[in-house]
Amino acid sequence: MMSKEEREEKRIAKLAEKEEKRNLKIYEKYMEQALKEAKKAYDINEVPIGCVIVQDDKIIARGYNRRNTDKSVLAHAEIAAISEACKKTGDWRLEDCTLYVTLEPCQMCAGAIVQARIPKVVVGAMNPKAGCAGSIINILNMQQFNHQCEVETGIMKEKCTEMMTKFFEELREQKNQIM
Amino acid sequence: MMSKEEREEKRIAKLAEKEEKRNLKIYEKYMEQALKEAKKAYDINEVPIGCVIVQDDKIIARGYNRRNTDKSVLAHAEIAAISEACKKTGDWRLEDCTLYVTLEPCQMCAGAIVQARIPKVVVGAMNPKAGCAGSIINILNMQQFNHQCEVETGIMKEKCTEMMTKFFEELREQKNQIM
Repeated sequence: MMSKEEREEKRIAKLAEKEEKRNLKIYEKYMEQALKEAKKAYDINEVPIGCVIVQDDKIIARGYNRRNTDKSVLAHAEIAAISEACKKTGDWRLEDCTLYVTLEPCQMCAGAIVQARIPKVVVGAMNPKAGCAGSIINILNMQQFNHQCEVETGIMKEKCTEMMTKFFEELREQKNQIM
Repeated sequence: MMSKEEREEKRIAKLAEKEEKRNLKIYEKYMEQALKEAKKAYDINEVPIGCVIVQDDKIIARGYNRRNTDKSVLAHAEIAAISEACKKTGDWRLEDCTLYVTLEPCQMCAGAIVQARIPKVVVGAMNPKAGCAGSIINILNMQQFNHQCEVETGIMKEKCTEMMTKFFEELREQKNQIM
């Protein structure tokens, strides 16, 4: 027979598991929406990266990569979404928001997230060559800055990676046809 | 009497000194303009930070801090100037530009500079608590990224610091009067 302490431990472990499953479901629900944004980038021949920002269980801002289309370095998915979220909330601080993005942020976007004091970031695929949420460096979680984010990575990473891979494969094919 | 080698060495040292003086004069000329931008921020009660971007010895973009006024995290001086420079040049790459800023850039602005592949950044005062061009970290010059900037610091740092100090002193006074 289990002791009282053992029963209590088991109960807490089950609750934690339940909580984790519930969180994962929420993460996937919003990452699905970030993927929809990435698809918009894909459709205009841009590297397919998408982002949504959630506040009180509602999407308040969306963004997708339009760097070549807009001819602006600031047209990354995250910057577009952060810009819209500031407009919506009327505040440069996004302290009660969660940001979802299909690819690990670059140094600029990670910097913007910290500057906006976003407390939580959910990432799809990692970007080993340039990512700044753990790959090259983790700007989102440096003790030296006045803000650190909680980071969840690898949410729906297969779907996020798949769209990227498809994009770059097609780009290579196009290039081969031209040359 | 000096040998031929010694004379040659002396000649080269003099040329280098001349070049340095000429560069310093250019740096100061444009930092003066960045300070003018910082003054615009000061005049609307914002932390006085200003920026200009120079291409072919011409200022193509200007920006100053408007974070509280615009209620946007993206309203930093450097981001405003980079955004304008992209519009002016019709390119997200600012590969032949020099960026002048009165205060060491934060992680977001340093990230934007690297993303825009700006080759040279001239900084006024350093920001020991949050700067990302050498103080906390040097995002402008990380070998792991695909772009590194040349960085010149301390140009007219007294004037740049003076405006900041004045701003924060007056802010404290205002607070004391209210409380």
